[in-house]
Amino acid sequence: MFSILLPKTFNFFDLLEKQAGFSVEAARFFKEQVSNDGINEVTLQKMRDIEHSADDVAHEIIHRLNTTFITPFDREDILSLTKEVDDIADMINTILSRMVIYKLKGGDRSLIEFSLVIEESVRAVNSAIKGLRNTKNSALIQEACVEINRLENVGDSMRDMVLAELFERAKDPIAVIKWKEIYQDAETVLDICEDVAHIVDSIMVKQA
Amino acid sequence: MFSILLPKTFNFFDLLEKQAGFSVEAARFFKEQVSNDGINEVTLQKMRDIEHSADDVAHEIIHRLNTTFITPFDREDILSLTKEVDDIADMINTILSRMVIYKLKGGDRSLIEFSLVIEESVRAVNSAIKGLRNTKNSALIQEACVEINRLENVGDSMRDMVLAELFERAKDPIAVIKWKEIYQDAETVLDICEDVAHIVDSIMVKQA
Amino acid sequence: MFSILLPKTFNFFDLLEKQAGFSVEAARFFKEQVSNDGINEVTLQKMRDIEHSADDVAHEIIHRLNTTFITPFDREDILSLTKEVDDIADMINTILSRMVIYKLKGGDRSLIEFSLVIEESVRAVNSAIKGLRNTKNSALIQEACVEINRLENVGDSMRDMVLAELFERAKDPIAVIKWKEIYQDAETVLDICEDVAHIVDSIMVKQA
Repeated sequence: MFSILLPKTFNFFDLLEKQAGFSVEAARFFKEQVSNDGINEVTLQKMRDIEHSADDVAHEIIHRLNTTFITPFDREDILSLTKEVDDIADMINTILSRMVIYKLKGGDRSLIEFSLVIEESVRAVNSAIKGLRNTKNSALIQEACVEINRLENVGDSMRDMVLAELFERAKDPIAVIKWKEIYQDAETVLDICEDVAHIVDSIMVKQA
Repeated sequence: MFSILLPKTFNFFDLLEKQAGFSVEAARFFKEQVSNDGINEVTLQKMRDIEHSADDVAHEIIHRLNTTFITPFDREDILSLTKEVDDIADMINTILSRMVIYKLKGGDRSLIEFSLVIEESVRAVNSAIKGLRNTKNSALIQEACVEINRLENVGDSMRDMVLAELFERAKDPIAVIKWKEIYQDAETVLDICEDVAHIVDSIMVKQA
Repeated sequence: MFSILLPKTFNFFDLLEKQAGFSVEAARFFKEQVSNDGINEVTLQKMRDIEHSADDVAHEIIHRLNTTFITPFDREDILSLTKEVDDIADMINTILSRMVIYKLKGGDRSLIEFSLVIEESVRAVNSAIKGLRNTKNSALIQEACVEINRLENVGDSMRDMVLAELFERAKDPIAVIKWKEIYQDAETVLDICEDVAHIVDSIMVKQA
C-alpha cells in the first residue's frame, strides 16, 4: 500500500453516527407501520429507501477503512461494527417485506410489542456508538450496552411466549408458518443489537 | 494499550477446559431429558443454569483476552474457539427450550439417537481442547478431530433420514413444523462441534 | 513458526481457480437436474462428488495458508474467499439433497429460473477470481462484481415473487414448508456469491 498517498486519518465517528441514525429511523418507521394496518408497497418503498441510505454509509465506511492509514480503533472492530449496524436496518426491512409478501396486516399485538422493544434497543445502540467518540463516555456506553443486553433477554422471553401462544391456538398451519418467521425475525433484530453491544464492549476494553 | 500494566500471560487452558466441561454437562443433561418425558420448566431451568455457567466462563476468557499481553496461541483463534464452544451449550439449551414451548414430549426415538451422537461429539471436543495444553498431544487431538468430523457426517445422514420419514408420514403440518426445527437444531449442534474441530486443527497446524 | 523451513510462497491462484471451477460445475449440474424430473440418489451422488472435490481444494488452500510464509494478498482474505467459495457448492448440494429427501420432482418453473440466475452468478464469481491473478484485470473484476450484485438483487425479487405466489395458491401446508425452504436456499446461493464479490472487492481496494 502506498500509504504516503493515503489520507492519514478520517472521521469515522461521523460516519458511524450517521449509520446508526438510519437504524433508529428504520426502527421508528417499523414501529409506526406495524401499529396500523397500512403496510403496502408504498410503505415498503419508504423502508427500502431508509435501508439503502444506511447501506450507502456502510459502503463509504468500508471504502474509507480500506484506504485510510490510521483508524481511531482496530480496523477489524470498525468493520465488524459497521457490518452489524448495517444488519439492523436490513433485518427490519426484511420483516416488513415479508409481511407484504405474506399479506399480513399490521395491528398484531405481539409484533407491536416487539417493535417497541426493538426501537428502545436500537436507540441504545445509537447512544453507545455516539459515546465512542470520547473515552470519557465509558460509563454512558457501559449503561447503553447493559440496556441492550437486557432488552435482548426481554425479546427472548417475548418470542418464547408468543410462539407458545401461536402453536397453542394454531388452527391454520399456513398462518403459523408466516407468523413464526416474523416473530423469530423480530427477535433476531435484538440479537443483532446485542452483537453490536459486544463489539462496542470489546473496543472499550481494548482502549481502557 | 498500557501493556506494562497488564498481566503478561494467563492460564487460558484452565478456562477453556472449564468451558468445554460445561458443554459436556449440557450434552449429558440433554441426553437424559430427551430420553424420558419429564421435560418441563424445572428441567429447563437446570439447563439454563448450565448454559449460564458456560457463558460466564466465555465472558471471562474474552475479558482476559482483551487485557492480557501474551497468549499461548493466536488471540483470534482463542476468541473463535471460545465463541464456538459457547454456541454448543447455547444450541442445546435452545432445543430443550423449544421443546417446552412446542409442548413436545421426550421419548422420541430419533431425537434420543441424536442426543447420543451429540454427547459423543461434545466429549471429543472436550478431549481435543484438553489436549491443546501440550503440543505432545497432537496425535490425540488429531484423533478427536477426526471423530468429530465423522460424527458430523453421521448426524447429516440421520437428519436426512429422519426428515424424509417425518415428511413421509406427515399428517399434522403443525407437528412437521415443530419436529423439523428440532431435528435440524440437533444436527446444528454437530456442525458447531465440527467448527470447533476446524479451529483446533488450524491452531495445531500453526504450532507445528 | 520456523518460517525458514516453510515454502516462501505458493501459487494460490491456481488453487483458487480450481476451486471456483468446481462451483461452476456444481451450478451447471444443478441447472440440468432441476430442469428434468430425474433427481434421484444417483444424480445426488454425482453432485456430492463435485462438492467433495471442491472441499478437497478448500482444505488444501487452508493447509497451504497455514504453512506458507508469503501470500499474494492478506492471509485472512484468502481464508474468507476460500470459505465463501466452498459454501457455494455446499449450498447447491444441500438444495438437491433436500429435494430428494422431500421427494420433490424437477421441472418446477420457478426453481429452473433460479438455477439459471445461479449459474450466471457463479460464472461471474469464476471470472472475478480468475482476474485476481493480475492487477491489470481490475476493470474485468469490477465488472464481474457488479454483475454478481445485480444478480443477487434479481434473486431477491424472484424469491419475493415466488413466495408470494406459493402462499397465494397454498393449499397443502406441507408443500409450502418444502418449497419455501428450497426457494430460500436458492436465493442464499446468490447471497453467498455476493459475499464472494465483497471479499474480492476489498482485496482489490487494498491492492490499489
